[in-house]
Amino acid sequence: MKAELIAVGTEILTGQIVNTNAQFLSEKFAELGIDVFFQTAVGDNEERLLSVIDLASKRSNLVVLCGGLGPTEDDLTKQTLAKYLGRELVFNEEASQKLDDFFATRPQYARTPNNERQAQIIEGFIPLQNITGLAVGGLQEVNGVTYVVLPGPPSELKPMVNEHLVPLLSINHTKLYSRVLRFFGIGESQLVTVLKKLIDNQTDPTLAPYAKTGEVTLRLSTKAKTQEEADAKLDALETQILSVKTLEGVELSQLHYGYGDDNSLAQVAFGLLKEKGKTITAAESLTAGLFQASLADFSGASEVFNGGFVTYSIEEKSKMLQIPLEDLQSHGVVSAFTAEKMAEQSRFLTNADFGIGLTGVAGPDELEGHPAGTVFIAISSGEEVRSIRVVIGGRSRSDVRYIATLYAFNLVRQALLNA
Amino acid sequence: MKAELIAVGTEILTGQIVNTNAQFLSEKFAELGIDVFFQTAVGDNEERLLSVIDLASKRSNLVVLCGGLGPTEDDLTKQTLAKYLGRELVFNEEASQKLDDFFATRPQYARTPNNERQAQIIEGFIPLQNITGLAVGGLQEVNGVTYVVLPGPPSELKPMVNEHLVPLLSINHTKLYSRVLRFFGIGESQLVTVLKKLIDNQTDPTLAPYAKTGEVTLRLSTKAKTQEEADAKLDALETQILSVKTLEGVELSQLHYGYGDDNSLAQVAFGLLKEKGKTITAAESLTAGLFQASLADFSGASEVFNGGFVTYSIEEKSKMLQIPLEDLQSHGVVSAFTAEKMAEQSRFLTNADFGIGLTGVAGPDELEGHPAGTVFIAISSGEEVRSIRVVIGGRSRSDVRYIATLYAFNLVRQALLNA
Repeated sequence: MKAELIAVGTEILTGQIVNTNAQFLSEKFAELGIDVFFQTAVGDNEERLLSVIDLASKRSNLVVLCGGLGPTEDDLTKQTLAKYLGRELVFNEEASQKLDDFFATRPQYARTPNNERQAQIIEGFIPLQNITGLAVGGLQEVNGVTYVVLPGPPSELKPMVNEHLVPLLSINHTKLYSRVLRFFGIGESQLVTVLKKLIDNQTDPTLAPYAKTGEVTLRLSTKAKTQEEADAKLDALETQILSVKTLEGVELSQLHYGYGDDNSLAQVAFGLLKEKGKTITAAESLTAGLFQASLADFSGASEVFNGGFVTYSIEEKSKMLQIPLEDLQSHGVVSAFTAEKMAEQSRFLTNADFGIGLTGVAGPDELEGHPAGTVFIAISSGEEVRSIRVVIGGRSRSDVRYIATLYAFNLVRQALLNA
Repeated sequence: MKAELIAVGTEILTGQIVNTNAQFLSEKFAELGIDVFFQTAVGDNEERLLSVIDLASKRSNLVVLCGGLGPTEDDLTKQTLAKYLGRELVFNEEASQKLDDFFATRPQYARTPNNERQAQIIEGFIPLQNITGLAVGGLQEVNGVTYVVLPGPPSELKPMVNEHLVPLLSINHTKLYSRVLRFFGIGESQLVTVLKKLIDNQTDPTLAPYAKTGEVTLRLSTKAKTQEEADAKLDALETQILSVKTLEGVELSQLHYGYGDDNSLAQVAFGLLKEKGKTITAAESLTAGLFQASLADFSGASEVFNGGFVTYSIEEKSKMLQIPLEDLQSHGVVSAFTAEKMAEQSRFLTNADFGIGLTGVAGPDELEGHPAGTVFIAISSGEEVRSIRVVIGGRSRSDVRYIATLYAFNLVRQALLNA
């Protein structure tokens, strides 16, 4: 199958937004064993869009159009494809119902005739419902070419693709099976160095490292007919990888914390807390609530989290957490002592099983003689308190704060694995 | 001038990398007043690349090829364009010298015949030297079409474009000047509806709405010779826009909170707090620290923020904030009363000028009979406390929490504007 992706939107051509949908879809299609041969972006212009659709229909047999399904005048993707195919637009009942429900619960929004367009699909198309938005998508084969219409916002496109499009396209293909291993505590370049032999000799499965902020993932991929066939090959490679040692002599199995593209240290730590029936709290200085907000992003957070503290100034660290101000002053705010006291006192004051203390220098300026990126992170379990000092160098303020929370979630993970 | 951007590289089509060069170049070209009509990505395949070059040469008069200038076998951009134009590749002296210097100072690297290809340009092309890498770029007009060849890595492409390409292209062009107006409290479809006349009649300046999570921006753009000429036109249109009323009779000037692509409600609120020398705190339930973490993302946050509370459970709301548990129980956690008490008590306990209370239902399940997305947000200034109830429907848990913080920052902004 020769696929071609067409992004529709003048905001792409003026550089206001990056066409990340192209990457997302290309990756998905690679997993399905569908080759993408062209990606195109075109503006909200009927004539040029028609020419692009015509060209794509001649050189590809899967044509995916993204964007331009919204309520405004310049949203013309469905209209233009309908014109090209000589078909009418018709209302989709389920999408219309969703519009009704949306406006019924939002008296503050005025419903305009434009909104109705979002519930329309091209005659004869299979509707692809929009889980997180109002504009319905669609799919249909016409004269040997399969056309797919998707919304532009990634928050709408991704769930529609994962839930509705992938199942429709995955029939009849040898599939590409992938497994993503996630690592925390090693950089991409060292991981590539220690895995050099495996990477250089890769044929099937293939092995691709990918650096994310503060962590690295490895994607293992193999084409197979069944999940079982794929699993056997991926299991063997995974075992090999995890037994490799870092330059410091640590086995990679120690740094491997989970699987999957949508996974995270926060999610793994949250899952372990739930599984083991433990509660957690935190006192946060440089991260100022980021750790707690990440926890509460998971549905069911109230099972493991009752509340915590954002202690930004030294006075509030003392007052909220009942730590003598003189002690904080003599040890310094950026110190193991302060991180450990924050962890202990937050745990004590909220009666949680674990307390986390986060203090350090987000930057850009240094603090108490410590360079930007110096962070102390402590975990208290009642029985014991321990802390680590990390220096997250050459990073923006917001990266330093984010990576500091990753270290905190990793401490939680380690404590629970050993519990 | 009709420009077309062609990214060459199979790694784009497999989704391994995002084509951020397209955005960078589109933005640069917009500033130069050059319209980009198409962006294409094609793999490292001579036949398909030839077909794309041929099509671009027929429909555009500025064709920019990015990527595929490296030393490996699959780098074939220059070779393929040379073949299309019927020209030879020749060595560029300056680039050859650079290669010599590079390997002279790096005895650990083995120089291979492949490396030499990076110093080649198409016969007759103006070389574009690579400031941060080895592959030389080029530019030339052939039969009315200007071809530009650029390296793929953004770290090489950007300096080459800024230092060498822009000066060559900017002669004889008027520039595109843009202004972005940001709005909170109105959806994209209503904004488009009330501005329909202005949008339909737009010629110069143009007017483009764009929906972001929880807010909408309008980009006003005009081509002009000087900033002053542009400002006069943009000022006039802005005045017209801001005097338009919503369907509820509110003037858009009331919903317009700032300018610029990189701006945010948090930033505007933070700037006002600093400017007026006021401090702020918060007690957060559903947002669990997100409001405070957003504040602390700005360098200098300690001037306006000392700390605050994450009160997730009803018990911690009572304990940390010293609110009688019976009062919380009788009014309910999801109530104006609770939001207002949270705002007042957090302000009182930390001695801040403003206190924010955030409580509600992040979802997906309902709470106390309130549907997911119901949020109460309060602001206390000591003199008075006020709260609003909003229903953020049809959104993910994480969107509900994020949009709730936008409402909170907007309350802060309004309070400070009136102060």
